[in-house]
Amino acid sequence: MSRKIITLTTDFGMKDPYVAEMKATILGICPEATLIDITHEIEKFSIRMGAYILSSATAYFPKGTIHVVVVDPAVGTRRRSILIQTKQGFFIGPDNGVLSLAAERAGIEHVNEIKNPRFMLPVVSSTFHGRDVYAPVAAHLANGVEAKEFGSEIDEIVRPEFSKVVSRKEFLVGQVLHLDGFGNIITNITEAQIIRLAACSCLNIRLPSRKVKLKFCKTYGEAKPMEPLALIGSHGYLEIAVNQSSAVEKFEMKLGDKITVSLAQKP
Amino acid sequence: MSRKIITLTTDFGMKDPYVAEMKATILGICPEATLIDITHEIEKFSIRMGAYILSSATAYFPKGTIHVVVVDPAVGTRRRSILIQTKQGFFIGPDNGVLSLAAERAGIEHVNEIKNPRFMLPVVSSTFHGRDVYAPVAAHLANGVEAKEFGSEIDEIVRPEFSKVVSRKEFLVGQVLHLDGFGNIITNITEAQIIRLAACSCLNIRLPSRKVKLKFCKTYGEAKPMEPLALIGSHGYLEIAVNQSSAVEKFEMKLGDKITVSLAQKP
Amino acid sequence: MSRKIITLTTDFGMKDPYVAEMKATILGICPEATLIDITHEIEKFSIRMGAYILSSATAYFPKGTIHVVVVDPAVGTRRRSILIQTKQGFFIGPDNGVLSLAAERAGIEHVNEIKNPRFMLPVVSSTFHGRDVYAPVAAHLANGVEAKEFGSEIDEIVRPEFSKVVSRKEFLVGQVLHLDGFGNIITNITEAQIIRLAACSCLNIRLPSRKVKLKFCKTYGEAKPMEPLALIGSHGYLEIAVNQSSAVEKFEMKLGDKITVSLAQKP
Repeated sequence: MSRKIITLTTDFGMKDPYVAEMKATILGICPEATLIDITHEIEKFSIRMGAYILSSATAYFPKGTIHVVVVDPAVGTRRRSILIQTKQGFFIGPDNGVLSLAAERAGIEHVNEIKNPRFMLPVVSSTFHGRDVYAPVAAHLANGVEAKEFGSEIDEIVRPEFSKVVSRKEFLVGQVLHLDGFGNIITNITEAQIIRLAACSCLNIRLPSRKVKLKFCKTYGEAKPMEPLALIGSHGYLEIAVNQSSAVEKFEMKLGDKITVSLAQKP
Repeated sequence: MSRKIITLTTDFGMKDPYVAEMKATILGICPEATLIDITHEIEKFSIRMGAYILSSATAYFPKGTIHVVVVDPAVGTRRRSILIQTKQGFFIGPDNGVLSLAAERAGIEHVNEIKNPRFMLPVVSSTFHGRDVYAPVAAHLANGVEAKEFGSEIDEIVRPEFSKVVSRKEFLVGQVLHLDGFGNIITNITEAQIIRLAACSCLNIRLPSRKVKLKFCKTYGEAKPMEPLALIGSHGYLEIAVNQSSAVEKFEMKLGDKITVSLAQKP
Repeated sequence: MSRKIITLTTDFGMKDPYVAEMKATILGICPEATLIDITHEIEKFSIRMGAYILSSATAYFPKGTIHVVVVDPAVGTRRRSILIQTKQGFFIGPDNGVLSLAAERAGIEHVNEIKNPRFMLPVVSSTFHGRDVYAPVAAHLANGVEAKEFGSEIDEIVRPEFSKVVSRKEFLVGQVLHLDGFGNIITNITEAQIIRLAACSCLNIRLPSRKVKLKFCKTYGEAKPMEPLALIGSHGYLEIAVNQSSAVEKFEMKLGDKITVSLAQKP
């Protein structure tokens, strides 16, 4: 009797009819679905940003939630479509790496390739699998169709390069995963990786533009207004911020930039 | 017992309270309505863009869905408000052409002028009929009020100029209906109109800025990265695209630009 | 058996996972909640804009609606978190003035400080109380937990400076509360304050950039296209507009600008 939650994450924006067409398709097959937008503002074709947002947002949804993701630069070519079942819920989308951060975090149980045309729209366009394949598959899954009905199980999925962190005794080298709307720089370095540095009060951080020594804080408010700081954000990754201002602008960072972190001497 | 779906399409954006006021009004009258945003990012006062988005998005919704549209530059003057019943569902909004593409595509059954103050808010402002007229009418309709209760039947609605295509033996002349967020140029030329050219592999296309010969593809991925192409988009209209890039920027197109299409010689 | 409506108003934008994390948290605790976005496009840290949008939008929601607001520049410091019960519904957020316009308009009954960790997430981050405190409090409130369970009653809340209007016999001095997406300039001068001037057909308005004499209209359409006008908007505040164009651009206004209004001589 629980509600059937289906979330949507795309790079479609809201100026086009695409998101509404997906929702319409889902409601036509599963009228009692509860639709939640994670975001449609993923940068066009940015598998990295899609993977980060999905991984961060989906950790909080109730068990059994179905997540549909369409960041799909290779739509219409031979890239696979997949359905991943995890301990927390389901992920549906192209097999290009956009699902894997979130799915691994949630604990992958099995993966099925989506092949069975019975659960797609009668005519599948070559340009819009979000509406013609992923939306109906999500709706049928919400209606109780079992994962194996959509296609046979597979062993391997595409894993993206942007989650790798080099960890040495004296330093860590990660990269920029996301630049958020508050101007915070979110890296792929996790709390677990930085924990041996956590006792110190300062970090040396080498950015492409310069080297900085930053206070390691628990909250933005520990820094003075306009002061830069480092902290573990609410998503569990190392973040570089400026209290009440934009670290993105201050340090001129972009997605994928390399970041090296080491222990700073106490002053 | 089916769900009562009400969709909203406006040019209000999301930085103002207007969309929320419409939703609040609907839920106050019909608490069990399911509200779906088609988009609130229609360009201010663009009846053309509103008509295109609505026509494209609404084709996929379940039967009986109620679509409310507010792109209404003449609010507060004597333009009429209408309720259109089609074979697929209902359309509510100003009689300025914004509803007609979608309603004709869905099959118009009858049109009623909205006049009865009993189904409007007690005080109707002169500036915001979306909240004071269209939202409550949609909610009462969802509650089971019959179309004729809102006002008497009328014969004619305003039909927009931007859907006309000139079709000659050797060529078609259409115009730009929409520029999507991926940089694709969407014309008003339909699949049925272009079908006699469909056997060929190339089209000559005259744009305001230049003449181009384009591959006629089934999917973006058939073209090389950065290569321009023509295809029938998932919405059924001729579309000019650049694989993984922006045709809008490459060809410097704008809304309403004329496009002439003819058969190209095979090379 | 009535629906449990929870609205969300934030300055998070939709390019980040933050809004989805709040929705996920709510649905995990109260699966039958109906979630309505008021907006997530409040200007970053703008308590003034948040207060205006909230006050304008929430007037129309059904009784018992729960409004969650996160515009929270001081998150992680010692600012209080509050739950306000009004005659119309509930307001949850930081005690920094963002709730007070809306809550006073709705009729404050009592205010409780939010303190009880039993109704927060098990780990409360220092940077994201929207997800860790306000979302779960709203969901528990929707589940029937009583206001006093969240913390003890308090007498005073922070009241913002931006709602004050100077009212003299011959003139009013207010300020700009909001610049809407249509280019309309919305002031903090209410209909009740301007009523003694309402009989006249013209107002003298002194703006920072110049003095203008404006027609006092009931609707945008009473002015010619491109003509400036003054009117009481649908939200009950004095508004300066240009019919089918932008008063913000014409008069180069910004938030907080002073506006002096007096009676104009009939021509």
